[in-house]
Amino acid sequence: MIIQDYVETLGNAATMASRSIACATSEVKDTTLALIAEHLDSDRQFIVLANELDLEEAKNNSLDPAMIERLELGPSQIDQMLEGLHQVIGLTDPIGEENDIGRRPSGIYLKKLRVPLGVVGIIYESRPNVTIDAASLCLKAGNACILRGGSEAINSNRAIGVSIQNALAKSKLPNASIQIVNTPDRRVVSALLSLSSCVDIIIPRGGKSLIEKVIKESSIPIIKHLDGNCHMYIDDSANLEMVIALTVNAKTSRYGVCNALESLLIAKNEAKKILPSLCSEMRKRHVELRGCIETRCLVEGIKAASDADWSLEYLAPILSIKIVADILDAIEHINKYGSGHTDCIITENTDNAKRFVREVDSSSVMVNASTRFADGFEYGLGAEIGISTDKIHVRGPVGLQGLTCQKWVVYGDGTIRK
Amino acid sequence: MIIQDYVETLGNAATMASRSIACATSEVKDTTLALIAEHLDSDRQFIVLANELDLEEAKNNSLDPAMIERLELGPSQIDQMLEGLHQVIGLTDPIGEENDIGRRPSGIYLKKLRVPLGVVGIIYESRPNVTIDAASLCLKAGNACILRGGSEAINSNRAIGVSIQNALAKSKLPNASIQIVNTPDRRVVSALLSLSSCVDIIIPRGGKSLIEKVIKESSIPIIKHLDGNCHMYIDDSANLEMVIALTVNAKTSRYGVCNALESLLIAKNEAKKILPSLCSEMRKRHVELRGCIETRCLVEGIKAASDADWSLEYLAPILSIKIVADILDAIEHINKYGSGHTDCIITENTDNAKRFVREVDSSSVMVNASTRFADGFEYGLGAEIGISTDKIHVRGPVGLQGLTCQKWVVYGDGTIRK
Repeated sequence: MIIQDYVETLGNAATMASRSIACATSEVKDTTLALIAEHLDSDRQFIVLANELDLEEAKNNSLDPAMIERLELGPSQIDQMLEGLHQVIGLTDPIGEENDIGRRPSGIYLKKLRVPLGVVGIIYESRPNVTIDAASLCLKAGNACILRGGSEAINSNRAIGVSIQNALAKSKLPNASIQIVNTPDRRVVSALLSLSSCVDIIIPRGGKSLIEKVIKESSIPIIKHLDGNCHMYIDDSANLEMVIALTVNAKTSRYGVCNALESLLIAKNEAKKILPSLCSEMRKRHVELRGCIETRCLVEGIKAASDADWSLEYLAPILSIKIVADILDAIEHINKYGSGHTDCIITENTDNAKRFVREVDSSSVMVNASTRFADGFEYGLGAEIGISTDKIHVRGPVGLQGLTCQKWVVYGDGTIRK
Repeated sequence: MIIQDYVETLGNAATMASRSIACATSEVKDTTLALIAEHLDSDRQFIVLANELDLEEAKNNSLDPAMIERLELGPSQIDQMLEGLHQVIGLTDPIGEENDIGRRPSGIYLKKLRVPLGVVGIIYESRPNVTIDAASLCLKAGNACILRGGSEAINSNRAIGVSIQNALAKSKLPNASIQIVNTPDRRVVSALLSLSSCVDIIIPRGGKSLIEKVIKESSIPIIKHLDGNCHMYIDDSANLEMVIALTVNAKTSRYGVCNALESLLIAKNEAKKILPSLCSEMRKRHVELRGCIETRCLVEGIKAASDADWSLEYLAPILSIKIVADILDAIEHINKYGSGHTDCIITENTDNAKRFVREVDSSSVMVNASTRFADGFEYGLGAEIGISTDKIHVRGPVGLQGLTCQKWVVYGDGTIRK
């Protein structure tokens, strides 16, 4: 019950704070973000020391090296956090934007007004830099936030929390505008997910088991990111040079990102022409290839892809390859095995491009462009809090606007409904 | 397990069908809606007979008379259904609408394209006319839908389902574009709520216990409507005549609707001037008044409002009245006890109007207009599938656009991310 009380206290304080931030001017919000940057900068030493405690603990607990790497918060990561804060300061404030609908036959005058969501709960793992990224985007969009980082980063997050609190104390915004959960107790997550009277939206960021727990337990609406099982389909009329450039960029420029290429589909008629050089380029870059039976007949030494491969987000130097009959077959495969994240067609045929764009049910659909472009910065959102694979509220990269909503505003002069 | 299989079959068929409807032209969708109207019209007698079975069963089970009234499907209700269908045919198709974002520094060209959500699951109670309203809006927005009506309306919904299936068989759209659950077994609801691989969104329509069950069990995103505890705040500078006209319209034009006035707040300075005539107007119309202690001192014979009254959606000729210190006090009360549906300020003071619009956290905020205007038709949406009290995806009346989303479309010419 003490955990429940603690989380309710956070929730009530966040709700109160959200009323103030919702009405704060852009100047007040930007000044607060600048204060947070100043405090993080002057508290560097303290934050790095706290992070060292987490790193030591992680090594003692034999955490996965990739996870330990993500946990690290050295001077360069702190510089990135400061840079991120200044980028958010530079973004246009979406709050207060009015959309005139106009006069209705009844006489009322109708507008839509962009307002914050209210209180955002963010549940994340490892990377302590998320704390600053998420907090700054929430604040700029006029939301209060409650941040629950991973237990493995508790000391780092507590230290960042101290800097944030010192900055908020000097600002015109309430202390509870940004609250960081300061206990690693896992019951906090369940308590937060049931706090629908205070929290307006939950954004989980982390591995599949975290997301699944959140989906299962939350009585609060969620914006979530599941897999990024991204496809490229090489159409009948694809240009070989372009195919190599795009697939190499999409697969090999970074392996651990959600917009990396994971599965290649190739039209039967093109396979013979394209696959040998494509496979050789991938092998030069040490990418393991797993193919369908037709692929393996065309190019020697390719491992067999199992049915499970078609659904996998490898996040590693592995690529699955399937020869398909035609564009129809490709679209069907993508809609069946894909994750609705980002999928691309490489083609010179305009009709096929149109068809692919219309029929592939993914948050980003691309024609002759690398899947790696699916990103808030590349789309001009300035920053992103994640990439939504949901269809409601916001699809694809979630920027400031994804953290807001619109209310209807009705003006009358004593107008009654007949 | 048979129920589970049945629901999965519906889900898979809906997913397949959704791919076709998503790409159907407006003409094909409108022709299908017209066919449904024709079949409903020619099947009138059959539908009315089926409805009589439900009504008889309802009487045998001693259902609440209000519920029996909602269940009735006579010739005039069928006429309304036909009229609704023709209204939906007349609406502009939102699908395919493109929003150019433009060229990005990387060279990619970016668009947003409006597309359907996919498969919509609707869980509702009583009123069998919802079957047609919901099905027609989903279809026009390019979605497949699975409709699960109340067990008390099972015969009516089955009959409507036969007409719909006969119409779909003559159309260019798949039979599974609209599927009506044909068993009253309550396990269908739970099975549907866990079918996240097939169903993209759940819209519950009905009483509080239904909504709560859906929130608790659903692993699928929801668009929901909770209470409509609507307020009017009479500000310092309100005009008496306008106050009477607006409150009488908002409270008494219909009692059982979610945009009806339920709670009146009045600024201390105005109470003496306004309350006596306002209360007398309400009493003329047999509205029961429940007031705070100050209200009861000013006007005799008013029942005491308990703390619970401030949160109640009466949906009946009852009005709670509270005297508040000022606009700040009013906003705080509304944000604390309100349901985020629709709230109004009656004022001649522009600054107070602005403040109320900004700070009241509701889907519709009104100035000098009746709360009864919160409605899809009045807002120009043409039709609505409900009024969302959620903040994400869509707030307030949900029309065709609320049943769609936008995907990102990226065009390159072999563009890679550097």
